[in-house]
Amino acid sequence: MSIQHTVVFRLAHAPGSSEEAEFLADARAALTSIPGVEDFRINRQVSPKSDLAHQFTMLFADDAAYQAYNDHPTHVSFVAERWVPEVAEFQEYDFVEA
Amino acid sequence: MSIQHTVVFRLAHAPGSSEEAEFLADARAALTSIPGVEDFRINRQVSPKSDLAHQFTMLFADDAAYQAYNDHPTHVSFVAERWVPEVAEFQEYDFVEA
Repeated sequence: MSIQHTVVFRLAHAPGSSEEAEFLADARAALTSIPGVEDFRINRQVSPKSDLAHQFTMLFADDAAYQAYNDHPTHVSFVAERWVPEVAEFQEYDFVEA
Repeated sequence: MSIQHTVVFRLAHAPGSSEEAEFLADARAALTSIPGVEDFRINRQVSPKSDLAHQFTMLFADDAAYQAYNDHPTHVSFVAERWVPEVAEFQEYDFVEA
């Protein structure tokens, strides 16, 4: 069963800054290079009921593809080198059809 | 610009209960009857990094369609009569393409 992996987040960088644009572009390049990542998208979160500002969403064909992504060295290094220092707040959710 | 309106939530009802099934079915019937609601889906939230268990997601063609939904009497009465008493915890997010 296909899994939609999502994370909603707010950066430490100022909205509209070059650091923000660079983070989003680098994330797209890194994460879409990982095998199994399908339909990767970056959305803006616009509800005033949350102060998170961005969403990454991607699809995996199954749990094995999702696990391989999590363990992939490109993902692991992206989390350590970019996500942890540059993201101020986040929440992950994974969705499957009910 | 199309808007994806979402809410991730946990019910006061026991997982797998008839009350849970009834809430989800009644929500689908009520909310999909409202003009402007497109691609309504109910998903299960399966990441252990959140204790929320369900997601409603729907698309609106524009802000006017979203506002009309919010103000529609079927939505207002669903929130007052079912959502408030039966939902234990929730978070809304709205997404637009970056």
